[in-house]
Amino acid sequence: MNFGLIFGGNSYEHEISIVSAIVLKKVFRGKLSFVFCDKERNFYLINPNKMNAKTFSSGAYKDEKQVFLKQGGFYEKSLLKEKLLDADVYINLIHGKDGEDGKIAALMEFFNIRYIGPRLEASVLSYNKELTKLYAKKVGVKTLPYTILKKSDKQYKEPKYPCILKALRLGSSIGLAVAKNKEEFEYAKDLAFEFDDEILIEDFIENVKEYNLAGCKIKDEMIFSIIEEPKKNELLDFEQKYLSFSSSTEAKEADLKDELKEKLKEAFVKIYDPCFKGALIRCDFFVLDNEVYLNEINPNPGSLANYLFKDFSVILQRLAECVKNEKSIEIDYTFLHSINGQKGKL
Amino acid sequence: MNFGLIFGGNSYEHEISIVSAIVLKKVFRGKLSFVFCDKERNFYLINPNKMNAKTFSSGAYKDEKQVFLKQGGFYEKSLLKEKLLDADVYINLIHGKDGEDGKIAALMEFFNIRYIGPRLEASVLSYNKELTKLYAKKVGVKTLPYTILKKSDKQYKEPKYPCILKALRLGSSIGLAVAKNKEEFEYAKDLAFEFDDEILIEDFIENVKEYNLAGCKIKDEMIFSIIEEPKKNELLDFEQKYLSFSSSTEAKEADLKDELKEKLKEAFVKIYDPCFKGALIRCDFFVLDNEVYLNEINPNPGSLANYLFKDFSVILQRLAECVKNEKSIEIDYTFLHSINGQKGKL
Repeated sequence: MNFGLIFGGNSYEHEISIVSAIVLKKVFRGKLSFVFCDKERNFYLINPNKMNAKTFSSGAYKDEKQVFLKQGGFYEKSLLKEKLLDADVYINLIHGKDGEDGKIAALMEFFNIRYIGPRLEASVLSYNKELTKLYAKKVGVKTLPYTILKKSDKQYKEPKYPCILKALRLGSSIGLAVAKNKEEFEYAKDLAFEFDDEILIEDFIENVKEYNLAGCKIKDEMIFSIIEEPKKNELLDFEQKYLSFSSSTEAKEADLKDELKEKLKEAFVKIYDPCFKGALIRCDFFVLDNEVYLNEINPNPGSLANYLFKDFSVILQRLAECVKNEKSIEIDYTFLHSINGQKGKL
Repeated sequence: MNFGLIFGGNSYEHEISIVSAIVLKKVFRGKLSFVFCDKERNFYLINPNKMNAKTFSSGAYKDEKQVFLKQGGFYEKSLLKEKLLDADVYINLIHGKDGEDGKIAALMEFFNIRYIGPRLEASVLSYNKELTKLYAKKVGVKTLPYTILKKSDKQYKEPKYPCILKALRLGSSIGLAVAKNKEEFEYAKDLAFEFDDEILIEDFIENVKEYNLAGCKIKDEMIFSIIEEPKKNELLDFEQKYLSFSSSTEAKEADLKDELKEKLKEAFVKIYDPCFKGALIRCDFFVLDNEVYLNEINPNPGSLANYLFKDFSVILQRLAECVKNEKSIEIDYTFLHSINGQKGKL
């Protein structure tokens, strides 16, 4: 099976996505074509030999072949011909905006291209952190209490400190900060408002236990990664968080009682099935008093969380075999024919 | 200002969208180009003289010029040139799937095309009837209690009769039926499961008061239509419901006390602002014991509910002037440059 990898996008995580693609090239055994979406959202087919940071940072990617979306896939254009790019399934590896907000899902569905990644609805529910909480509650998974602060709010109640502020619609650690007092709060607020008109505020719980679990459903079977306890300083920043998935050292399994492992997996399944079918996602959980809380859903985790799986390439291949797009609707114009048969023609 | 109208789509309401486009052509004063999305999701620029039912039902639309999406708009192709279609703003008039589920919103945002219609997040929230309820609750608008029945559910509790069954993710009256007993319930259930794997079930309240209100926000001002009490038999079917917007008779304003009118408008604003900015939507409400309940959101109402407005064309023109797409993100490759400067080059 031939894979296409879509990366880049008009996203704050554009560069992270490039790193993620370079890492995936290293760890994935299988045929991959590299489709880069530049910041203007033009697509380029990148020669595998050119898959390094400089190709992108220097702008040299513009010398590569441009490709275009049409029904059925990406096409290369020469003077008079159009050639379909040879990929059976695409992997959506755009992080943040464009990739995780539903746009790539919509493009793939609209142009009838099979893909690994969150579907439209799943994208919107994981991209907006408040919707994630509403969704988690609906499926029976706890999340931390929160308040929303809007840019247009003239007045607001000062939160309890320490608190954590997050731009409502960003992946990763961008637009996110902990505030221990009013001064830090004001600063963090202004930072987050650069990314979104709404901010989500939660209590910041020092030394809370965090566990990451990735997985996907293949046919009727749930596949889980190991459960990782991510290393952390007070908070992982942009570089720390993302350079982690370029490491070739495998993550270590957290030393947990079976009961807690089962609780984490149960919560994962509630979140995943059926909304996230077709995607390989990572859920980041908190554990407080032996209770599991969803922190966030990463619908396109960095390099698809390969470091959490023993047989990552095999899982991706098997997942690719079972991803499905929406059913096409048959249209036979019965209704319009019936109107034409009547007096009051349209 | 030049408008483009996008209609059709791979949707159960494909034909309805064609009727809606023909009606809009009649009632809208302003320059309109007609971009038809056929069931295979190829786009055609339809000559205004050909905007009649037969062009579509006979397949004659295929003789019209095909157009393609690229950054900035739709393009016509001739042998060696590409010509940008002359439209400043597009109106999303695809009803149901493709138009209301977020795909058209995603295409417009991705290709950087200004449009009137629900944004991606708003689309997903109005398309899935359960998410609509969660969203309404969040913004402080009541909805009726409900249960969800999944195709995969082996057992289910029989509902109270009469009840109403709705496919979870369809607009309009398709996949929807009232059941007065177990036999009717089984039949309605099988019908709805043809459209979605999940069904929403509510009590059916005989003779409940229904009121429809359309509107949009233009700059800082909310614009409301008249409040209509839709005529109904037990339930409007497909033809009754949609042929209504091809009527040239204006709707009559419901005779309501000012207090109730205000309550309906307040609920509308809670739903609309800010999630639905950029769209002209219609909310359908129930009133029970003088309390307002949201029944459904129509993010692309049939012919954009022109029959509810006195000065429809002016409103659409003014709305078009203030619709905005997402801000583009600047990418300067600081991060990749910093990696290149380090030892462990990627």
